[in-house]
Amino acid sequence: MPNAITRKIILGFGMTIDGYIARRDHSVDYLVMDKEAGELMEKFWATIDTTIMGRKTAAVTGKMQKDLEMPEVGGVGNFVFSRKWKAGPRKGYTVVNESPAAFVRKLRKKPGKHIFLMGGGELGRSFLQADLVDELYLGIVPFLLGEGRPAFPAGFPQRDFKLTECKPYSSGVTLRYERVRAKKAR
Amino acid sequence: MPNAITRKIILGFGMTIDGYIARRDHSVDYLVMDKEAGELMEKFWATIDTTIMGRKTAAVTGKMQKDLEMPEVGGVGNFVFSRKWKAGPRKGYTVVNESPAAFVRKLRKKPGKHIFLMGGGELGRSFLQADLVDELYLGIVPFLLGEGRPAFPAGFPQRDFKLTECKPYSSGVTLRYERVRAKKAR
Repeated sequence: MPNAITRKIILGFGMTIDGYIARRDHSVDYLVMDKEAGELMEKFWATIDTTIMGRKTAAVTGKMQKDLEMPEVGGVGNFVFSRKWKAGPRKGYTVVNESPAAFVRKLRKKPGKHIFLMGGGELGRSFLQADLVDELYLGIVPFLLGEGRPAFPAGFPQRDFKLTECKPYSSGVTLRYERVRAKKAR
Repeated sequence: MPNAITRKIILGFGMTIDGYIARRDHSVDYLVMDKEAGELMEKFWATIDTTIMGRKTAAVTGKMQKDLEMPEVGGVGNFVFSRKWKAGPRKGYTVVNESPAAFVRKLRKKPGKHIFLMGGGELGRSFLQADLVDELYLGIVPFLLGEGRPAFPAGFPQRDFKLTECKPYSSGVTLRYERVRAKKAR
């Protein structure tokens, strides 16, 4: 299977029942990182060696790591997509401003573990537009926020998935999906 | 417990992973009513004796019943909220144009089974604004639509829930939640 995707791009985040990834002010104070959630994420991190995120998610993640709410991830390639920042290496991550498709093509040429596209929102939409998302890994927290930053902002074609996991945990439920792509006509 | 809610209002619908209840043109052609989904709904209907929906959901539901994709529900009170239509009884349902809170107060005075608020959207939001929703019963279909009619349009205060059920089925996963209301200060 020469076209099999070995390094999957997994779009993942915690979202509310009504589909927000953050409050309007970008805060995610409602995300609980208790023991069970921590263990879930630890297992997941073991399958990952590369992270991709947008500038806004990078800012929130940086803050959470500083506040020790989130572990620093060592030995991993971290890439932050930004049209505002200058491309190139920084301390702990690399700023990218090429197209997701071109970037992913290069990334997949190198062997490695899966690639975690963190945070949804606008960068998630760009990846969905280019059909680069192979899996979804969602943690649904049990409330309706009523307003906030949409996890899946509109503006990409329909994308079909298959549910592969549905698991209640201490502070919600995780849903995992695999992308189902129509077979190309020969 | 004089204040216990015996007749719960259950807001329920099928939605996409990205939180739409219908395509932009209101169609829900992607909802699959196979044997397993039918059995799930049959069990649910046995706990219900009253339906409430908005005018747009009523139109779609009427069409589905006519096309035999959805059973007619006998012996049930059916109420359609509308600001456009004249209040009063019709064949098979009653048009209501009072406030959800006033209507629900009267409805709950009569004994009966649970009340199914069908369809989300704007009427769902009105009920959430007035904190009248006691349960959520969501069927998540396994795809991202990319655009459509939002299941939970923004514009109500945060509402906390507790996950009570999470069940994969043939064409998706059902999530069931119970409203968690903060206890009133004495």
